[in-house]
Amino acid sequence: MLRLRRHHYPDHHRRILLRLFHHSTFHPQPLDLPLCHPTYQIWSANTSLGKTLVSAGLSSSFLLSPASSANKKFVYLKPIQTGYPHDSDSRFLFTKLPSLSLRRKFPSSLILSNSILFSSLFAAKSFLSSRDLPFQPEKFNSEMYDLNFREENRISGEEDSSVSELVCKTLFAWEEAVSPHLAAERESGGVVGDSKVIETLGKCLRDGLESEIERGKREILCIVETAGGVASPGPSGSLQCDLPFRLPGILVGDGRLGGISGTISAYESLKLRGYDVVAVVFEDHGLVNEVPLMSYLRNRVPVLVLPPLPQDSSNDLMEWFDESHNVFDSLKNIMLLAYSERIQRLCDMPKRAGELFWWPFTQHKLVPEEAVTVIDSRCGENFSVYQDQKNKFIGQQFDACASWWTQGPDATLQIELARDMGYTAARFGHVMFPENVYEPALECAELLLQGVGKGWASRAYFSDNGSTAIEIALKMAFRKFSFDHDVLVDFLGKDTTEKCVELKVLALKGSYHGDTLGAMEAQAPSPYTGFLQQPWYSGRGLFLDPPTVFMYNSKWILSLPELLYSEIVEHKDIMVRHCSTVVHAAGGMHMVDPLFQRILVKECQNHKIPVIFDEVFTGFWRLGVETTADLLGCVPDIACYGKLLTGGVIPLAATLATNAVFDSFVGDSKLKALLHGHSYSAHALGCAAAAKSIKWFKDPQTNHNIIPERRILREFCIAKVDINHCTPIYVVKNLVHAATLVDDKISSHRTVQRVVALGTLCAIELQAAGCNAGYGSLYAASLLKKLREDGVYMRPLGNVIYLMCGPCSSPEVCSQLLLKLYQRLEEFDKVEEKLKSC
Amino acid sequence: MLRLRRHHYPDHHRRILLRLFHHSTFHPQPLDLPLCHPTYQIWSANTSLGKTLVSAGLSSSFLLSPASSANKKFVYLKPIQTGYPHDSDSRFLFTKLPSLSLRRKFPSSLILSNSILFSSLFAAKSFLSSRDLPFQPEKFNSEMYDLNFREENRISGEEDSSVSELVCKTLFAWEEAVSPHLAAERESGGVVGDSKVIETLGKCLRDGLESEIERGKREILCIVETAGGVASPGPSGSLQCDLPFRLPGILVGDGRLGGISGTISAYESLKLRGYDVVAVVFEDHGLVNEVPLMSYLRNRVPVLVLPPLPQDSSNDLMEWFDESHNVFDSLKNIMLLAYSERIQRLCDMPKRAGELFWWPFTQHKLVPEEAVTVIDSRCGENFSVYQDQKNKFIGQQFDACASWWTQGPDATLQIELARDMGYTAARFGHVMFPENVYEPALECAELLLQGVGKGWASRAYFSDNGSTAIEIALKMAFRKFSFDHDVLVDFLGKDTTEKCVELKVLALKGSYHGDTLGAMEAQAPSPYTGFLQQPWYSGRGLFLDPPTVFMYNSKWILSLPELLYSEIVEHKDIMVRHCSTVVHAAGGMHMVDPLFQRILVKECQNHKIPVIFDEVFTGFWRLGVETTADLLGCVPDIACYGKLLTGGVIPLAATLATNAVFDSFVGDSKLKALLHGHSYSAHALGCAAAAKSIKWFKDPQTNHNIIPERRILREFCIAKVDINHCTPIYVVKNLVHAATLVDDKISSHRTVQRVVALGTLCAIELQAAGCNAGYGSLYAASLLKKLREDGVYMRPLGNVIYLMCGPCSSPEVCSQLLLKLYQRLEEFDKVEEKLKSC
Repeated sequence: MLRLRRHHYPDHHRRILLRLFHHSTFHPQPLDLPLCHPTYQIWSANTSLGKTLVSAGLSSSFLLSPASSANKKFVYLKPIQTGYPHDSDSRFLFTKLPSLSLRRKFPSSLILSNSILFSSLFAAKSFLSSRDLPFQPEKFNSEMYDLNFREENRISGEEDSSVSELVCKTLFAWEEAVSPHLAAERESGGVVGDSKVIETLGKCLRDGLESEIERGKREILCIVETAGGVASPGPSGSLQCDLPFRLPGILVGDGRLGGISGTISAYESLKLRGYDVVAVVFEDHGLVNEVPLMSYLRNRVPVLVLPPLPQDSSNDLMEWFDESHNVFDSLKNIMLLAYSERIQRLCDMPKRAGELFWWPFTQHKLVPEEAVTVIDSRCGENFSVYQDQKNKFIGQQFDACASWWTQGPDATLQIELARDMGYTAARFGHVMFPENVYEPALECAELLLQGVGKGWASRAYFSDNGSTAIEIALKMAFRKFSFDHDVLVDFLGKDTTEKCVELKVLALKGSYHGDTLGAMEAQAPSPYTGFLQQPWYSGRGLFLDPPTVFMYNSKWILSLPELLYSEIVEHKDIMVRHCSTVVHAAGGMHMVDPLFQRILVKECQNHKIPVIFDEVFTGFWRLGVETTADLLGCVPDIACYGKLLTGGVIPLAATLATNAVFDSFVGDSKLKALLHGHSYSAHALGCAAAAKSIKWFKDPQTNHNIIPERRILREFCIAKVDINHCTPIYVVKNLVHAATLVDDKISSHRTVQRVVALGTLCAIELQAAGCNAGYGSLYAASLLKKLREDGVYMRPLGNVIYLMCGPCSSPEVCSQLLLKLYQRLEEFDKVEEKLKSC
Repeated sequence: MLRLRRHHYPDHHRRILLRLFHHSTFHPQPLDLPLCHPTYQIWSANTSLGKTLVSAGLSSSFLLSPASSANKKFVYLKPIQTGYPHDSDSRFLFTKLPSLSLRRKFPSSLILSNSILFSSLFAAKSFLSSRDLPFQPEKFNSEMYDLNFREENRISGEEDSSVSELVCKTLFAWEEAVSPHLAAERESGGVVGDSKVIETLGKCLRDGLESEIERGKREILCIVETAGGVASPGPSGSLQCDLPFRLPGILVGDGRLGGISGTISAYESLKLRGYDVVAVVFEDHGLVNEVPLMSYLRNRVPVLVLPPLPQDSSNDLMEWFDESHNVFDSLKNIMLLAYSERIQRLCDMPKRAGELFWWPFTQHKLVPEEAVTVIDSRCGENFSVYQDQKNKFIGQQFDACASWWTQGPDATLQIELARDMGYTAARFGHVMFPENVYEPALECAELLLQGVGKGWASRAYFSDNGSTAIEIALKMAFRKFSFDHDVLVDFLGKDTTEKCVELKVLALKGSYHGDTLGAMEAQAPSPYTGFLQQPWYSGRGLFLDPPTVFMYNSKWILSLPELLYSEIVEHKDIMVRHCSTVVHAAGGMHMVDPLFQRILVKECQNHKIPVIFDEVFTGFWRLGVETTADLLGCVPDIACYGKLLTGGVIPLAATLATNAVFDSFVGDSKLKALLHGHSYSAHALGCAAAAKSIKWFKDPQTNHNIIPERRILREFCIAKVDINHCTPIYVVKNLVHAATLVDDKISSHRTVQRVVALGTLCAIELQAAGCNAGYGSLYAASLLKKLREDGVYMRPLGNVIYLMCGPCSSPEVCSQLLLKLYQRLEEFDKVEEKLKSC
C-alpha cells in the first residue's frame, strides 16, 4: 500500500487521529423524534455558506411576522459548535432577534434565552474569563465541562397579553475553529461519542414538550443546525450525515462559481442516506445557479435565492434581513406546509393500506386500522415507527423478526449497501444474464462457491426467491437421479414428454420450502397445502418424523418421534430425492437432530439419491455459521440460498450444485439444458448486495461478532457432537452472551415449554394450557403487544415467539432485548397467577 | 409555486437560461472507448483545487521518470475550457513540461504539441489578436469558430534514439471565466450539445491509435480533464458527470476546512453514476483531511496528499513539482496497476463465467468462451461491451432484446432510478410487509390501481417475479371460482385438505407463464414441460388454438386455426379459470386476435369464470399502451405484472384483483386468508423503482413518445377494430415512425414470413426453407451475429428475431436499428441467391 507524504502536522497527531478513526463503525441507537411540531435540520454544501443566517432569518419570519398570531416558540439547537466562544451561532440568533424585533416594531412581547450545555476545558475557560465568571473544577465530566450557562432577555411589546419565545441552545462547544473531530480530539480526547450527542439532542428536542402540550396550543418550530458541510465529521469522527436522525432538511447551497456542483453533490449525499430535503436556499453571487439546480431537481424541490450579503464584515445585516424577508417567509411556509402534508400522509397511511394492500399470510378482517404499523424508515436493526398516542412522534422498534428472517445489516452496512445500490443501478441497471458476464454476477458466484459452497459446489444458478430456488433444485435433482438410475437411457431419441417413472421426494414432516406449487409438493400436507389454498397440491413425497432437540428447564432435550413428541419438528432443511419416495425436512422454529440428518444424508448419497439442503433460512450466519454444512459435518449435492444472501436489502436466490449435477444437463441439444429462468436472473443489484454482504459478515474488521479462526459467530458454539455414541451431546452456549438469562431463567420459566437458541435466533415456545393450543397463541399475542411498547417488534408463530438479530448486531443490544422479554414473561406470569387465585 | 427573488442579473438572461435547461433530457449516444492503453478522467470536488497541476504532475512522472524507458506518449485532453485564452490548461502542460524536462536532465528527446480545436467568436478573436494571427470568417461553423490551431516544441535529449511525446488538446473554448453553460450560452448561443462534445472527444481518443499500434508498441497514458466540479454543467447544461463516458477516474479532493465533506460528496456523486475512482489526491492544508477520508473509503481507494502550494502566485512551481514528484509517481503507478488489473479481469471473465455460472435456458456445451459477452456497464438502452478484436476497446451495443423484455429506462431515467435506489436502501433497506405500511409500497399500490388496474382492480398483491405472480393469481382464481360455484359450502367446518373437485384452467396453446410448477401446469405441453425438464407436470388445462394476426407482404393477415395455421400462437396473455376446464393464452411473439380474446373473456365472465390477464410481458407500454385491457376493450378479474413494472432495474411483480376476488378470502379465520407470501414481499427498492417508472413512462414531460390525450405511445396506433362485423380491421401503424420500412420493405421481404410490429416490439419470423424449421434458426443465428457487429445486441427465438426498445427510446435510434436490420436482410438474401445459382 501507499506511503503518504506527511508535512507540517506532527506525526503523533496523525497517529491519534488514525486511532480515532480506526473504530469508526458505530452502533448508536437512533432517536425518538417528536412530531407534534415541525423540526428541521439545516445542512450545508460547505462551511461558511450562511446556515446560521438562514436559521436567524427563519426565526424572525416565524416569530416576528406581523400577520402571525403570537404565542409562538422557535427552538434553535446547535449540537456542535467549534471556535467557541468567539463563534457562537446560538448567540448570534439570541442577539440578532431583539434588534430585528425593535426594527419591525413587533407588537407582542418576546422572551429570549441562550444556553450552552457542555464545553471543552479550553472553551470553558475562555468563556468564563470573558464573562468574569468563576471556573468550577467540580463541573468536569470526563474531559467535558458541564458549563450549563444560560442567559435571558425580554423585549416587552405593546400587546403584553401575547408572548413569543426564542430558545437557543448550544449542546457541545470547543475552542478551536476547525472541524469538530480535530477540535474534539485536541481539546477533549475524543470523548464525545455519537451516543452522547444523540442522547443530549434527544433530551433537548423533548425538553418541555409535555408541559407545552399541557399548557395548550402553542405553535412551535424547531431547527437543528449542523456544523460544516453535510459529510463533515462530528466530534467522534462519524460523518454528521451518518448519524441516525433522519429529520427533514433544508440544504443551504453555494451560489458561487463551482457551487452548482457542490450543492448537487451535497444533496446527493443526503439522499444516499435516506434524507428528505424540502428546500434548497443559497446566497446569490450573480451566477444564476438556481437555473441548473431547478433543472436537476426537476422542480420537485423548491430553490430559493437570498440577496448578496454586504461585503463589509462590520455590517449589522439589518438591511439584508429586511431584503431577504420575503425569501425567509417563503422558506418558512414551505417548511410548515411540508410538515403538515407529512403528518397528514402518516395519519392516512393505515387506512389507505387497509384499503389497497393485500398482505400475504394475513386475514385482513383481523387487522383493524389501529393495528397497522406505519414504518417511516429503518436504520440497521431498528424500525422508525410513526406513533400517535398522547403525542405524535417517531419511535424506535427493534425488528426482532428480522422482517421475515431476511435482515442482517447494521446501520453502517445499510449505508454502504445504499451506496452500492446507487452505483450498481447507475453502472448496470439490470443486464441480461444468459451467455453474458458482468462483474457483480461473477463476484457473487465466486464468493458463493468459495463460501457456502466451498468443498462441494461448482456452479451457481440464480433466481429471485427461496421458492424458485427450491423449484430449480428439484428440477436439478430429478435430472441427476434419472441420469444416475438410467431412467432416461436415450432421452433425446424418445418423446421426452412421455412419463418415464414417478419421482417423489423424501422429506421431513413440518417442513416448509415456499409457496409455489413445486415447492409445496415437496412438503407434507398442512393447512397451507389444503384445497382451500392450493387445490392442485397432492404431496409428492414420503415425509419422515425426525427427532428434534430443544432446551427446557436449563437442559438440552432430545425428543424422539417414537416417544410421541409428534408435534415437534425442526429448523434445519435437508431435502433428499428418490425415485418413488420423497423425503424432506424443513422448518419453523424447531431444531432437527443434526446426527439424524447427517446419517440420512449419508444413506441417501450411498444410494445415489441427490441431497438438497434448503439453507434459505439457515444460510449466512443465521445459526452462527455461514453454512449449516459445518454443523452437520456433511455436504449436499444441491443447496438453496436466499433471504440473508443480500444482507436483507433486495430479493435474490441462488441454487448451488456439484459438477456431477451440472453434467447431467450437458449435451449437444438445447433440450437437455435446464430450461428454467426468470427475467431478472442474476440481476446486478442483487448480486452486488450479496457480494458486499457475504464479505461484510465474515470479515472480523466489519463484523465484530466473528471469531476468525473458528469461522463462527462469537455468541454461539457447539462444543462437541459425540458421533461415536450415536447420540449428540450438545453444549450450546446461548444467544449473544446472555447465557444465564436464556439457560437459567427463560428456559426454566414456568410459562416456557421449549427454547431453541442458536446463532442469531432465540425461539421460545410458550406453554399451552392443557390441550388448548389456541390459548398459547392468545398469550403470545398479548405478550408481543406489550413488547412493542418496549420498542421490540416481534410477530408470533402460533404459540412460538422469537427474537432474531443480525450477524453483526451488538451483543449488548441483544441482551437488553432478552431482558425485556424476560421481564414481560415475569409480569404475565404474575397476572395469570392472580387470575387463577381469584 | 414559489416566485424567486431576482437580483443583479438581467431577466432576459434568466429566460434564455431557463430555455436551455427546459429540455435537458438528453439522449447522447455513448462512446466507444479504446482500452489498448490506460485512459483516466480527472475529476474535482470543486473548482480551483488543482486538477491541471495533477495532470501536469502525472505527465512529468510518466514521461520524465529516469528509470522509465522512452518512446512514451502522454495525451492530455481538455474537452471544455472557459476563460480562454488567458486560462488554457492544455497550454499549461505544454509550457511546463519543457522546463521540468531540462531541470530533470531528461536524457531522451521530447516532442510537444498543443492544439485548440473550436472556440467561441470572442475567444477566437482574443486568441488570434494575441498571436497576431488573421481572423478568417469562413472558419465559422454554427457559432463556433473552427480555430484548429496547433503549436509544437521539441527538446533534443542526449539520447536521440528515443523520443517521448506530449500531446495536449483543448477541444472547445470560451472566453469568459465562468461555468461552461453560462459561457456557452452567452458566447455561442448554446450550440455545443452533448453529442458534439462526445463525438469530438471520441475522435481525439481514437486519433492516431491505428498507426500507433501499427508502429509497434509505445506506452501511452491518456488523461481527460473535466471542468469545475464533478456535477458542474457542461456547455449544454448537462452535468458533466451525467455524460456517458464511464472512464475510470482520479478525484482531486479538497484539503481545506470543509473539504472532507466536499470530497466525500463529490465521490458519492461519481459513484451514483457508476464511476470507479481509483485514487483521491489533494493539496495539504495542514488539516489531516486524509485520515477521515481513508476511514470513509475503508482503505479501498488510496488517498494521496500533495505538498502545500507556494502562496506567491508568480512562483514557477518547479520546486513544488520536485517536492511532489514521489506523490505523482505513486499516483501514476496506481493508475497503471488499476488499468492492467482491469484488463486482466476483463480478459478472464468469459472463462470464469463458463466455469462458475449456470446460465438459465442455456446449453453450456454450445457456448464457447469466445461467444460470451463481457458487459462492462449499461447506459440507458445500450450495453458497453468489452471487445478484443484487433484492439481492445469498450464498444456499444443496443440491447434490442431489452434484456429478456425487462428494460425501459433511457439514460436519464437510469440515473434517476440509481439515486432513488440509493435513497430507498438508505431509508428503508427492506421492511416487513404484512400488517405494515411504508411509503414506497403505498405509492406503488396507488399507482398500480390508478393505472393498469383503473376501473376494475381494488387490491395489489406483491411478489418477486412473473411466475410467482401467476401462481398467486391461480390461487385467487381457484378460490373465487369455488366461492361462486358453491364448491366450498362450509369449508371451515370441513377438513379442508380434502379434495372437493378437480379444477382446471382454460388457456391458449403456445402460452407461457413462467417456470414454477403451478405456472407450468397452466400451459399446454411443450418441450419445457416434458419429463426431462419437469417430471411432475401434468397440464391441468383445456388448451385452445386461437386465431392470430400478423403482417405479411405489407398486409395484415388474420390466421384461423381451422386453416391449419396451427403453429401460430400469440403474444397476448389471457387466462381464464373454470371448474373442470382451464383457459389460458400466453405467448412468444405471436399476436392473438384481440376480438377472439374479448369474446372469450366476456363468455367466461358470463359463466362466472374468473379471468386472469398475464400482462407480465405486455404491461407498461410494451405494446404501446399502459395496459392491454385498453386494446381488448374488456377488463379481467385478476392481472399479473412484472418485468417493465420497475422500469427494468430490479425484480418485482404484482397481482391485481377485484374487490370480489379479495372478498372470497375475507372471513373470521386466518385459514381463509391467502396463505402465500415471499420474504421480500413489496420490498421497498422494488416499489420505489416501480413508482418512479410508472410515473416516468406516462408523463409527457419525461417520455416524449407519449401522446397525452390518447394515453398511447406515439409510434403506434390501432385505428379501428370493427367489432360489429366480428372481424377485426387492423390499421397498425408500424414501429417508431419507420412505417415504410416495416410495412413496405421488411414485411414484403422474401426472407420474411411474418411481422408483428406493435408498441416497442418488432418481431420478424424468417422463412424456413421448405419444412426445415431448423434452417430458419441457423439463418437467424448468423444474421444476429452480423447485427452484433453493427452494435445491435439481439437474441433469436428459434427462427423469430425481434427488436425491442424502451417506452422512452428515441424514434430516430429505433429507425436506425430497423434500417440496419433491413440492410443485413438484403445482404443475406443476396448471398443465398448466389449460393442457389452456383
